[in-house]
Amino acid sequence: MASQSTLDVQLIAASAFRPPSGVDWAPEATATDAEAIVEFAGRASFETFDRPNAHTAANADYLHHLIDVGNDALLEHATATVYIRGLSRAAGEQLLSHRSFSFTQLSQRYVPENESEVVLPPLIAEDAELRRLFLRAVDESRFVYDELLSALEEHLAGEANSLLRRKKARQAARAILPHASETRVVVTGNYRTWRQFIAARASEHADVEIRTLAVACLELLRPQAPTLFDDFLTSELADGTVMATSPYVS
Amino acid sequence: MASQSTLDVQLIAASAFRPPSGVDWAPEATATDAEAIVEFAGRASFETFDRPNAHTAANADYLHHLIDVGNDALLEHATATVYIRGLSRAAGEQLLSHRSFSFTQLSQRYVPENESEVVLPPLIAEDAELRRLFLRAVDESRFVYDELLSALEEHLAGEANSLLRRKKARQAARAILPHASETRVVVTGNYRTWRQFIAARASEHADVEIRTLAVACLELLRPQAPTLFDDFLTSELADGTVMATSPYVS
Amino acid sequence: MASQSTLDVQLIAASAFRPPSGVDWAPEATATDAEAIVEFAGRASFETFDRPNAHTAANADYLHHLIDVGNDALLEHATATVYIRGLSRAAGEQLLSHRSFSFTQLSQRYVPENESEVVLPPLIAEDAELRRLFLRAVDESRFVYDELLSALEEHLAGEANSLLRRKKARQAARAILPHASETRVVVTGNYRTWRQFIAARASEHADVEIRTLAVACLELLRPQAPTLFDDFLTSELADGTVMATSPYVS
Amino acid sequence: MASQSTLDVQLIAASAFRPPSGVDWAPEATATDAEAIVEFAGRASFETFDRPNAHTAANADYLHHLIDVGNDALLEHATATVYIRGLSRAAGEQLLSHRSFSFTQLSQRYVPENESEVVLPPLIAEDAELRRLFLRAVDESRFVYDELLSALEEHLAGEANSLLRRKKARQAARAILPHASETRVVVTGNYRTWRQFIAARASEHADVEIRTLAVACLELLRPQAPTLFDDFLTSELADGTVMATSPYVS
Repeated sequence: MASQSTLDVQLIAASAFRPPSGVDWAPEATATDAEAIVEFAGRASFETFDRPNAHTAANADYLHHLIDVGNDALLEHATATVYIRGLSRAAGEQLLSHRSFSFTQLSQRYVPENESEVVLPPLIAEDAELRRLFLRAVDESRFVYDELLSALEEHLAGEANSLLRRKKARQAARAILPHASETRVVVTGNYRTWRQFIAARASEHADVEIRTLAVACLELLRPQAPTLFDDFLTSELADGTVMATSPYVS
Repeated sequence: MASQSTLDVQLIAASAFRPPSGVDWAPEATATDAEAIVEFAGRASFETFDRPNAHTAANADYLHHLIDVGNDALLEHATATVYIRGLSRAAGEQLLSHRSFSFTQLSQRYVPENESEVVLPPLIAEDAELRRLFLRAVDESRFVYDELLSALEEHLAGEANSLLRRKKARQAARAILPHASETRVVVTGNYRTWRQFIAARASEHADVEIRTLAVACLELLRPQAPTLFDDFLTSELADGTVMATSPYVS
Repeated sequence: MASQSTLDVQLIAASAFRPPSGVDWAPEATATDAEAIVEFAGRASFETFDRPNAHTAANADYLHHLIDVGNDALLEHATATVYIRGLSRAAGEQLLSHRSFSFTQLSQRYVPENESEVVLPPLIAEDAELRRLFLRAVDESRFVYDELLSALEEHLAGEANSLLRRKKARQAARAILPHASETRVVVTGNYRTWRQFIAARASEHADVEIRTLAVACLELLRPQAPTLFDDFLTSELADGTVMATSPYVS
Repeated sequence: MASQSTLDVQLIAASAFRPPSGVDWAPEATATDAEAIVEFAGRASFETFDRPNAHTAANADYLHHLIDVGNDALLEHATATVYIRGLSRAAGEQLLSHRSFSFTQLSQRYVPENESEVVLPPLIAEDAELRRLFLRAVDESRFVYDELLSALEEHLAGEANSLLRRKKARQAARAILPHASETRVVVTGNYRTWRQFIAARASEHADVEIRTLAVACLELLRPQAPTLFDDFLTSELADGTVMATSPYVS
């Protein structure tokens, strides 16, 4: 029977800071690299390396002020890369609509579909009866996929190149596979883009799968830059799922 | 039985040119609006409104020269918007990876799935036996979709808001529908982006469905700006499908 | 004496709409092309071509609703191109920081600097004494520019290519010219970008020259899409200059 | 007398890699973080973590292959941030036209201009006579700047807010300062963008100042990702300045 995949989100890269020489400023020992980079860029803009304003002398106060006045262009100087597995292609499509990110997605053209897993919508996964119905239908579609694959390879017997023949057959046959098929994505973005994504997709109005992903990204990135995310508060909805929102985003 | 959708691509908007006052230059009568806009922007850059160079005095010569020297930033000043129907979600995903475009896609969350059509891979559509096998499997997945929908609505009986209940049920149930489901997209891009898309997707190496779309866009946009596309030559491949390529793109 | 240039902003291109065939919807006769395009894209997203909701059946109501709920991605489907002359290089730099636009700027490398004009800051232009002081200093810098040019051409006598010699000399000499030097720019953007630019630069806090440009763009684009800009209200500041702001932008 | 600033380019942030758990792959010990990130993203796309192809099993071979086939989208997953000082505003404008970067520039509105330095064009700096002529003219423009500043502050006596008065006066007065005024910029970009910038600006045809910057960025980034830059070869031009070019860029 088809196996069910679960969401897995890992941080695989993030900006590391190296203070430049010739600038009389060093970040606070407690600031993370991302927090230090954003503060450095802000101070470079006004050459306030001597922290002239007591209200924004501390890193946390400085960054909170930036978010408060909406100066989030400075957040573009620190980036984080995340590796996501266990996402349905349907949710993957929603993720890929955030064009400020850079994406690399698992190719469907080269990886055999019948080995891939499916991602069950939570409402279906939580009910034994629905789950059985769903997985049986997935198995059915994979059976048809295999039938189509054999028939297409035969149909394409004229194509001498066996690799190309298989690729063409696979390309056509996968059209019968369900939206629930798993995808995997490497996503790189700066902290401005991550905040925009979380604001848009962790909200109550988002689909539950992409919302779950957005909340997972929020929790994954929080330790990287606590001050850049502490305006986001998470809460549980009536159906037990989680959302997050900030007063600084619309 | 599920009905089969075919690709339909229409131009729904394009830049119209209005010569500014106070500039002693008018486009050739035979230049299209897009061609005139690009020439205007180029001449504004060097204030060569008096066409000082005989070799690039004519609009076509001027634009060919731009493409020849790779100065395609000027092509960003003219845009075209296309409405695409009869595209599979699988090909839609490939289209949406071209992040320089602006996209609006038919929402799957609001439109009832059982009314939507499917897009058959050409290799399957052209064979009666495979077509029958494929469409029967689509019908099967829609049957399961309907079953899931009913079960989920019952499962969600606690949700008082009937609109929200239906939306949540639909969201979960559609996960069983196949990649072949039709999508529709409004796509806006400037001529630099259109050329890049066509270069990447009309090539021999692209999937046949997205390649067919890229060639259709090429033929749709050609009359809008003949000179900006006449380096693209189309040819037929061994399997009867069409490709297009230009010596100016890699 | 150096001559003074004044701001001139003209619309040179804008999206024209062509209703597609096979869609049972036509825009209201009073909607502009940009307004029709945005409504079309919105209705294509939910297939509500039959205007099912009386509250948003009218084009103006539909667009106001989009802006109200922040769905401004739809505004990316209509574009407008503007030709700006009489802008100082200092303000040009601020304009070019809005990276969602496409720009073509008058090249300083090819156009002789001594023929170009200067753009006086309003505070200086409005006072006869300051204007005289300023223009005299501009003349002085041009005198030095000419001296440098001659000296550099002599210095570069070894360079056989006279065109290249002159270009190199000009490139170096122009470094002495003032920020007030005039620049000219062709700017293309979609209505989302235009709204963001106006929101950021027509505000009270912006420099007066870029603010004047932003307000001029607002007034130029208003007739193109009245409904997309009628949330922006203009008012006069204490110093007689104009600002514009909308409750829908931060 | 005005003091002369020299170009200073420092790396202040770069992506650090952390191999994810649950993936049976580790980068070669000799690969840098940026090189490992790009390889990881590529292998994630085809799930070739087991290095099935001997020709691309080594990190360097894998990355060379990506550049060879033009698959440079993968280079978007590693980023580097650079802090640039000693750049003229003229060259800064050219830098800022590369819209794929994120920029934070030293604000001219808040930093007193008379303290800032100037960047001499190399052709002028290398000749004692021209250098004297140039610096004298800079001093002259600063003298006028100071005169304008005093006159404007007097002119604005009606403005009660002394901070605002000074800001407005400074804003207007700086229009007389030369293009040679120094700017400082924080620039963040991924390796695809850095390659494109270097390709465009390290070439023989670029202005000498921006070319010098591009070559400096190349040498600064080389140790971060040797394999992503070893197709760029530097050479000395007849005038003693340096250029760089790669067979993989046009």
